[in-house]
Amino acid sequence: MDETQFLNLHKDRYFSSDPDQRKIARHLYQLVENLPLICPHGHVDPLLFADNRPFPGPTELLVIPDHYLFRMLYSQGVRLEQLGIPRIDGGTTESGYRKIWQMVADFFYLFRATPTGGWMKHELHEVFGVRKRLNSETAMEIYDQLQTELQKPENLPRAMFERFNIEVLSTTDSPIDTLEQHQKIRESGWKGRIVPAFRPDNVTDFTQSNWLKNIGKLSQVSGIDCNNYKGYIAALEQRRRFFKQTGATSTDHGVLTPFTDELTAGEAEKLYEKALQGTSTPEDAKRFTGHMLMEMARMSIEDGLTMQIHPGVVRNHNPEIFRVFGADKGCDIPSATDYVHNMKPLLNKFGNDPRLTLIVFTIDETSYSRELAPLAGHYPAMKLGPAWWFHDSREGMLRYRHMTTETAGIYNTVGFNDDTRAFPSIPARHDVARRIDCRFLAELVAEHVIDIDEAEEMIVDMSFNLAKKNYKL
Amino acid sequence: MDETQFLNLHKDRYFSSDPDQRKIARHLYQLVENLPLICPHGHVDPLLFADNRPFPGPTELLVIPDHYLFRMLYSQGVRLEQLGIPRIDGGTTESGYRKIWQMVADFFYLFRATPTGGWMKHELHEVFGVRKRLNSETAMEIYDQLQTELQKPENLPRAMFERFNIEVLSTTDSPIDTLEQHQKIRESGWKGRIVPAFRPDNVTDFTQSNWLKNIGKLSQVSGIDCNNYKGYIAALEQRRRFFKQTGATSTDHGVLTPFTDELTAGEAEKLYEKALQGTSTPEDAKRFTGHMLMEMARMSIEDGLTMQIHPGVVRNHNPEIFRVFGADKGCDIPSATDYVHNMKPLLNKFGNDPRLTLIVFTIDETSYSRELAPLAGHYPAMKLGPAWWFHDSREGMLRYRHMTTETAGIYNTVGFNDDTRAFPSIPARHDVARRIDCRFLAELVAEHVIDIDEAEEMIVDMSFNLAKKNYKL
Amino acid sequence: MDETQFLNLHKDRYFSSDPDQRKIARHLYQLVENLPLICPHGHVDPLLFADNRPFPGPTELLVIPDHYLFRMLYSQGVRLEQLGIPRIDGGTTESGYRKIWQMVADFFYLFRATPTGGWMKHELHEVFGVRKRLNSETAMEIYDQLQTELQKPENLPRAMFERFNIEVLSTTDSPIDTLEQHQKIRESGWKGRIVPAFRPDNVTDFTQSNWLKNIGKLSQVSGIDCNNYKGYIAALEQRRRFFKQTGATSTDHGVLTPFTDELTAGEAEKLYEKALQGTSTPEDAKRFTGHMLMEMARMSIEDGLTMQIHPGVVRNHNPEIFRVFGADKGCDIPSATDYVHNMKPLLNKFGNDPRLTLIVFTIDETSYSRELAPLAGHYPAMKLGPAWWFHDSREGMLRYRHMTTETAGIYNTVGFNDDTRAFPSIPARHDVARRIDCRFLAELVAEHVIDIDEAEEMIVDMSFNLAKKNYKL
Repeated sequence: MDETQFLNLHKDRYFSSDPDQRKIARHLYQLVENLPLICPHGHVDPLLFADNRPFPGPTELLVIPDHYLFRMLYSQGVRLEQLGIPRIDGGTTESGYRKIWQMVADFFYLFRATPTGGWMKHELHEVFGVRKRLNSETAMEIYDQLQTELQKPENLPRAMFERFNIEVLSTTDSPIDTLEQHQKIRESGWKGRIVPAFRPDNVTDFTQSNWLKNIGKLSQVSGIDCNNYKGYIAALEQRRRFFKQTGATSTDHGVLTPFTDELTAGEAEKLYEKALQGTSTPEDAKRFTGHMLMEMARMSIEDGLTMQIHPGVVRNHNPEIFRVFGADKGCDIPSATDYVHNMKPLLNKFGNDPRLTLIVFTIDETSYSRELAPLAGHYPAMKLGPAWWFHDSREGMLRYRHMTTETAGIYNTVGFNDDTRAFPSIPARHDVARRIDCRFLAELVAEHVIDIDEAEEMIVDMSFNLAKKNYKL
Repeated sequence: MDETQFLNLHKDRYFSSDPDQRKIARHLYQLVENLPLICPHGHVDPLLFADNRPFPGPTELLVIPDHYLFRMLYSQGVRLEQLGIPRIDGGTTESGYRKIWQMVADFFYLFRATPTGGWMKHELHEVFGVRKRLNSETAMEIYDQLQTELQKPENLPRAMFERFNIEVLSTTDSPIDTLEQHQKIRESGWKGRIVPAFRPDNVTDFTQSNWLKNIGKLSQVSGIDCNNYKGYIAALEQRRRFFKQTGATSTDHGVLTPFTDELTAGEAEKLYEKALQGTSTPEDAKRFTGHMLMEMARMSIEDGLTMQIHPGVVRNHNPEIFRVFGADKGCDIPSATDYVHNMKPLLNKFGNDPRLTLIVFTIDETSYSRELAPLAGHYPAMKLGPAWWFHDSREGMLRYRHMTTETAGIYNTVGFNDDTRAFPSIPARHDVARRIDCRFLAELVAEHVIDIDEAEEMIVDMSFNLAKKNYKL
Repeated sequence: MDETQFLNLHKDRYFSSDPDQRKIARHLYQLVENLPLICPHGHVDPLLFADNRPFPGPTELLVIPDHYLFRMLYSQGVRLEQLGIPRIDGGTTESGYRKIWQMVADFFYLFRATPTGGWMKHELHEVFGVRKRLNSETAMEIYDQLQTELQKPENLPRAMFERFNIEVLSTTDSPIDTLEQHQKIRESGWKGRIVPAFRPDNVTDFTQSNWLKNIGKLSQVSGIDCNNYKGYIAALEQRRRFFKQTGATSTDHGVLTPFTDELTAGEAEKLYEKALQGTSTPEDAKRFTGHMLMEMARMSIEDGLTMQIHPGVVRNHNPEIFRVFGADKGCDIPSATDYVHNMKPLLNKFGNDPRLTLIVFTIDETSYSRELAPLAGHYPAMKLGPAWWFHDSREGMLRYRHMTTETAGIYNTVGFNDDTRAFPSIPARHDVARRIDCRFLAELVAEHVIDIDEAEEMIVDMSFNLAKKNYKL
């Protein structure tokens, strides 16, 4: 075979090329390579495991739902219609899946040195047994191979879950979700552990387009009248209990800024009423969201659910794409985020309480060493989430360790989250995280900062124990 | 010769000292070392090539015009008068060029590990054949050698241009410039390709001291009455056409912030009238500048000129130096710059149009991974300019690649710009960029992120093709 | 001995594991390893040397005063009471020092890869001769060993000062301090050089709780009536003279932001009166503090004291801890800091004056390459303080060099400050700084950026000369 066609997944990938460091990294990696995967935060659809039907073809599985992937082609002038991304209005988009796959292959060079490129190589090689590089020439051959693979029993969702050695996988779910799929999985007798997570943004943020409708549904699913603030709070408490009973161990909160501020009961009521009447302002929404983060922290102390905050993203930066294709189409852009002032009210009220586990994420890397590591290195309740999103990458994770460890230590971090809706990419993502942590520790050992036995303990904590502990899994 | 006097320009400079990486970097470097130089953005005076007269002496060529150099001496207590920097009022400054050169040599240790130090070493060694280090002892000997060299025919500007293997060099020019020097070069029959670039800041920014005067000149050179907004816009369109006819392929915009905002025709007219009457406020100026960026993007879509934005610099931070010596004296200081909100109006209107090539620069490195790579990795029109100014350096360029590649890929970047007015330093600057890109890719190959054949393609793209393509050269 | 119990303080620690770089780093290190320590900024209590009594036991010496240490245990759920931290109300806290030491040992794994962990290892090994790692098993044995050591004559404060090879140590002192301990040291005939530094925050910042009381004391110690602004200024000038006579060569200013702004005499008087009457607003306080920085710069030009600014810290972020335990309990959190606009008034008025040495620190690393290196690389008066506080660490110092050297050079930096109140940790801290500078320069030599003889000069400047020169010691 022409060597340039060979899909290279080198056993030492992502380790330093320094011989001392590489040797240590290899040693550490063999300690964690085969540990079960803990997936405490992600967006895989539970329906996959409830139904356990074969995955659709390569394009529907690997291209159309992956905004990391198609955003890069879009940035180089390929239209989303050409990639088969469905339009909201149901208008025509490319339906020739082979043609789309060929186009992705033609443009696959764009992903050189990107996480998407690395994950895809891992997926093709390890999950589907592909041995050729994806490019214009090999596109159809690989498409055929994937088609065949996807029909095999070992590639059914549940079989894959087992093959991947996943110990537990958390989905992310709306409070108005009945968790029917989760119930179905539990009742099926299958032993795979899939748990929900409580993400109430669509009922706590007035600016969400369907907020009022969602409040109606919240009344309905909870059986508690949400036409007033007290009922609303009671309904949220009820839903959290229900989620917990269905296996949830955590909540998640996506907010524009991590602004927190406690309102008096009267103020909160008033803002809630205004929202019901459709007269609330953006400032009202901001204040109410900030208040609800406080409320969620309070409830977490009561019910023990680990609380996550994912702030700092300007969602749907491109209104034209949002209008035609909707949300999650690669148009979310990070912006500068302050934690030290915004989170002060919440931390001052609840941050000293060790019953709370509050995991804070950032997409603004400047806050790692300036704000987040210092905060996590002080407040008992606060922990630092792993490198998120664009920084869930070889270099992003390395920067994260370099910029947080000296001030917060590794024990105020919580291991890895794959945060993905792309189920078959899960092993690839965990593998990068484990390799980068091995690399980071190998450098510390080779430079005589820590001893090898310390690194051996730390790598198991970073790869497995910290996630389990902090998410109570 | 005393070894400590020997000017060391090591063949492996700037490559990693890791043997694996160094070997790969050497291999990649020999693929691009001798490629022609593409110089799509810079500030060399076209008069050099129109006249083709010998350069003046070493001090006038290498010290007095170089604010990178004299700022460092100034920071250590040397007065600008002592360095022969001309005063606006024509007051006395040092005119003993040998004395100035001696002082620079005495202080040359300040430039250890700085880009200026590296460029100067390269220039002395490669362009002028100097083999001793510049210091107090060697100062006069090197001065004499340079004097001799500068009289040789191979060191005339056009001969140097050819020796440097420059394929094309863009100057930066005002809309009220008649481009006479460019015409003269073209008419001379010389084959060197020198093209102008359209930089209209002095007629789009009301706060510039000569704005009103410049508007008068704009009317004059365009033959279109600029006493009203419509005429003004028409005149700018006319000048762009003229620049394009004279070879221009790009525009450039230096703004305090990348704020953009479309005004209604009525508002724009009103602000323009106020400015003509001398009654506009700083806020008016900001809004008009933001509007004109939108207009420039519109015109770029129409005439195909690549658009560049260089924002985020507090110009003339030191008013005393500005008063006595004028602009560009090393007193421009970067400040924190937001792109995600500021550029939203422009990107929302024109960012989805692949006919536009909008190259955005930054001097605030925090925006690389947080804002610019995510934006460039999404909007078809937007590309990321190379590491700029203080970051046009060994470490700055390496940080740039590390912080942008995973999210934007290399194909949303545009190769290298030397951005210099110091013509003899051009090969030095391109050489640093090529070496650092080789180093960056060598690391990726040695750590098994990409394969060697991929790196071989990428290095040619980074060193040559991307600049050519994005600047349409 | 069980190898995992062995305290490893490797001779190559913190050097790169790259063989070329390591070899060069070793060579550079032996040039500076034994140079005397210059300690121009810190918080050691002069009483130690005035009294020269034996240090108390291990827990009182190494745990209770060290907020770097106990903040990490607090972040993991250990209460400050359990660690014997004294309560303001005199309430009960743990008084079993062996029990506290055992708890620190049990949790010592938290400090893996942190500066506190590294300093402690160095201190135990080099200062006290401990050869076992601190952990649950060894805790009591090491406690006993330390107890014994602390009684030895060579571990009395003055003997330690000499053993540590400290050439000069600056304390930090309030203007209302009579410097009695400093006088006592001078009169004792002991030759150790301990000098005060003038830190007037408690009389320049209206928001400090005891401001009014402190003004009363200022009148008293200066013998100048401070009931009006003119007297206040005169008293400060008088105190500076007194500090200078007692050996001071510098002042220090801890401010929330580096905001500077010159008030008219009338405005300043008015704000001062309001403060005396207890009616000043936070905005008044901010403006007055900004004005006083200008005044302090003026006085520094007159009396020659080097001026330091330490801005950007949100003090006492956790009000509950502040209420119960007071200040300096590990609850100070950095926040984003602007220098380019805030310091413009001061730099514009005094920055061109080479008689002023103004050393600026930051805890916001984003300002290194964006603002501070460009400012220090231009203004003659301004110099860049070393990596501060959380960044006074192996990786923090390396980032500092990487992000400032290319733009400011090393000659606009001022060497190392240990900035500590933990006297026995001083050699550890200087050793890290020297090792990291060796490592940084070794990389530059190995990558052919500078020559070895240049590095040899630079390392001595970075380890010794620059601190001496810029602090006039």
